[in-house]
Amino acid sequence: MINFTVGPVQMDEETRELGKEQIPYFRTPEFSSIMKENEKLLCNFFDAPENSRVIFMTGSGTASMEGGIMNFFNKDDKVIVVNGGSFGHRLVQLCEIHEIPFTEIKLDYGTPLTKENLAQFENVGYTGFLVQLCETSTGVLYDMELIGDFCNRNGIFLFVDAVSGFMADKFSMKKMHVNAAITGSQKALALPPSMSFTVLDKKAIERCNIINVKNLYFNYPTYLKDGERGQTPFTPAVGTLLQLNAKLKRIEETGGIENQNKLAKARADYFRNAIKDLPFALFSKGKDSSNCVTALCPTKSGVNAHKIFEIIKDEYGIWICPNGGDMAEKVFRVGHIGSISKEEINTLIEAFKDLVKRGIL
Amino acid sequence: MINFTVGPVQMDEETRELGKEQIPYFRTPEFSSIMKENEKLLCNFFDAPENSRVIFMTGSGTASMEGGIMNFFNKDDKVIVVNGGSFGHRLVQLCEIHEIPFTEIKLDYGTPLTKENLAQFENVGYTGFLVQLCETSTGVLYDMELIGDFCNRNGIFLFVDAVSGFMADKFSMKKMHVNAAITGSQKALALPPSMSFTVLDKKAIERCNIINVKNLYFNYPTYLKDGERGQTPFTPAVGTLLQLNAKLKRIEETGGIENQNKLAKARADYFRNAIKDLPFALFSKGKDSSNCVTALCPTKSGVNAHKIFEIIKDEYGIWICPNGGDMAEKVFRVGHIGSISKEEINTLIEAFKDLVKRGIL
Repeated sequence: MINFTVGPVQMDEETRELGKEQIPYFRTPEFSSIMKENEKLLCNFFDAPENSRVIFMTGSGTASMEGGIMNFFNKDDKVIVVNGGSFGHRLVQLCEIHEIPFTEIKLDYGTPLTKENLAQFENVGYTGFLVQLCETSTGVLYDMELIGDFCNRNGIFLFVDAVSGFMADKFSMKKMHVNAAITGSQKALALPPSMSFTVLDKKAIERCNIINVKNLYFNYPTYLKDGERGQTPFTPAVGTLLQLNAKLKRIEETGGIENQNKLAKARADYFRNAIKDLPFALFSKGKDSSNCVTALCPTKSGVNAHKIFEIIKDEYGIWICPNGGDMAEKVFRVGHIGSISKEEINTLIEAFKDLVKRGIL
Repeated sequence: MINFTVGPVQMDEETRELGKEQIPYFRTPEFSSIMKENEKLLCNFFDAPENSRVIFMTGSGTASMEGGIMNFFNKDDKVIVVNGGSFGHRLVQLCEIHEIPFTEIKLDYGTPLTKENLAQFENVGYTGFLVQLCETSTGVLYDMELIGDFCNRNGIFLFVDAVSGFMADKFSMKKMHVNAAITGSQKALALPPSMSFTVLDKKAIERCNIINVKNLYFNYPTYLKDGERGQTPFTPAVGTLLQLNAKLKRIEETGGIENQNKLAKARADYFRNAIKDLPFALFSKGKDSSNCVTALCPTKSGVNAHKIFEIIKDEYGIWICPNGGDMAEKVFRVGHIGSISKEEINTLIEAFKDLVKRGIL
């Protein structure tokens, strides 16, 4: 099977080889020093301010979304939530569950956030801002410089879900005034699913220490304290963390994050150019699109997007990424993260062309 | 390195080979059917009553300890907590954090729970009972038939942390009147750390549906609902779940859980017999000891247990398992779970003998 979903994505050979190794005991100085290195490299790759820290959470990206909301905000806050897709909607849900006062900016799915959307929120006492870097369900890349400037100007704490956008799209905590941001192991890092990572600046560290959430597994102050000696409070996915270490070093040795951004952009551009004559509409406009994923709507009447996912899986041995909820029958997605070759992209394009020939697409 | 810790433990060749494979996309009927099979086999191996279910949690064993406490109990409960070591203490902490009214049975570390400990709790309105099967920090195996009968007689909900005891020691939800029990991927199942599993009987399912905890990542009703179609609400450690499936089938084909109990007992007995003449005291009495792990106190004056762990690691290439907290300098442990050969046990014994020769032990 060839995998064009947005996670788990295709792992490279080096990561796979490590997956076969025995997993070492981890309460040792040897593992601690690997973890300290992981923390340093992740901070570098997020372009985080000095003295930033990382929470290594065993759990999905949602675990770190919820962990962040529990640790950075409380009932005295008033936050803005951008809801432009399934993951924006999840941020709304989390604010509701944890009773964080919020105002939602509800966008038509597939459309970007604009200056106009933010105007009404200037100087009216908001304290937090929650947004995706890339809304994975629609492929929209939000204008993080616009958002960062707005938050900086208004003294607002900015928490970014960069789970799928990190490495694919330009991202800098320093330049975009981000206080905390997340990614997940099974996205562009192309490791097995199991871990998510939150980078915290000084303000985020202060917030979670003050809030000191009433939860053991999500208690960030404990993670920060144990992290000082390169450890986690509970047994983490040790194998994934070793694969992370090797992967971060390979990234560093091959041009760093800038080069990763370029490679993702090259894959996305190549794909988007190759499908120009196929019966698809782009769900988000090119200039607002993440390099991580392309969301497509089949344009021929009567074509069901989920059915296309099934046929491509069962008859061509390729996974594209189905959408859920309201979008399920109209939209599917093609991911551009992980270890994907030009030949594999060509194989997918040929499959689409064959479906057109067969009158299915 | 040879690994005698209690997790992560040594994986068998089949599990390692699967660790090298690409990880498939999982929102498919193919993965769902694997998950339904995982659920069925885990219920069988826990000897759970009909219509029991499994929560597949991406997270450490502690995540499922906390998940259970959040989902099965609330402020109207009155629970008994057995605290005979670090993990019993963690149950106490979790009751405190979540404001579950509780009474602690504090045991001297290394000693079993007796009928006398329970006498005062008969017919006085307790609603829940929290205990480990095996207290991993001391190696004590609790008398689950005694506890199960007590809970059954008193109509008390019994939640068992069988994280390290499952498969090593005899355990039956039906015979021991257990309502919910946990294990973890990196213990006797010998998979990579990343997942923990809770088996819920009918009463446990009812409780979590009524309580409907205000948390997204730990909301068990959502897991149960998605589980009906073989899915999880958030991306799980898909690779580990595939390794789990293959492992559970191998267990089934080779004499089931009964045979796994026998193998663990054989390893534990062989080890305990072989160290008889070495300068160690058993931290728990033989008859109260789990097959999962042996906790040992060096008897020669001035010998530091943590130092022995370090020397064995650095000079002999073997991990034994250090203890934490108050026990760190007095106790270390040798695990009997995972893929361990008689030759490897002999190598460890030779290392101990060599330390005696060198005057270190």
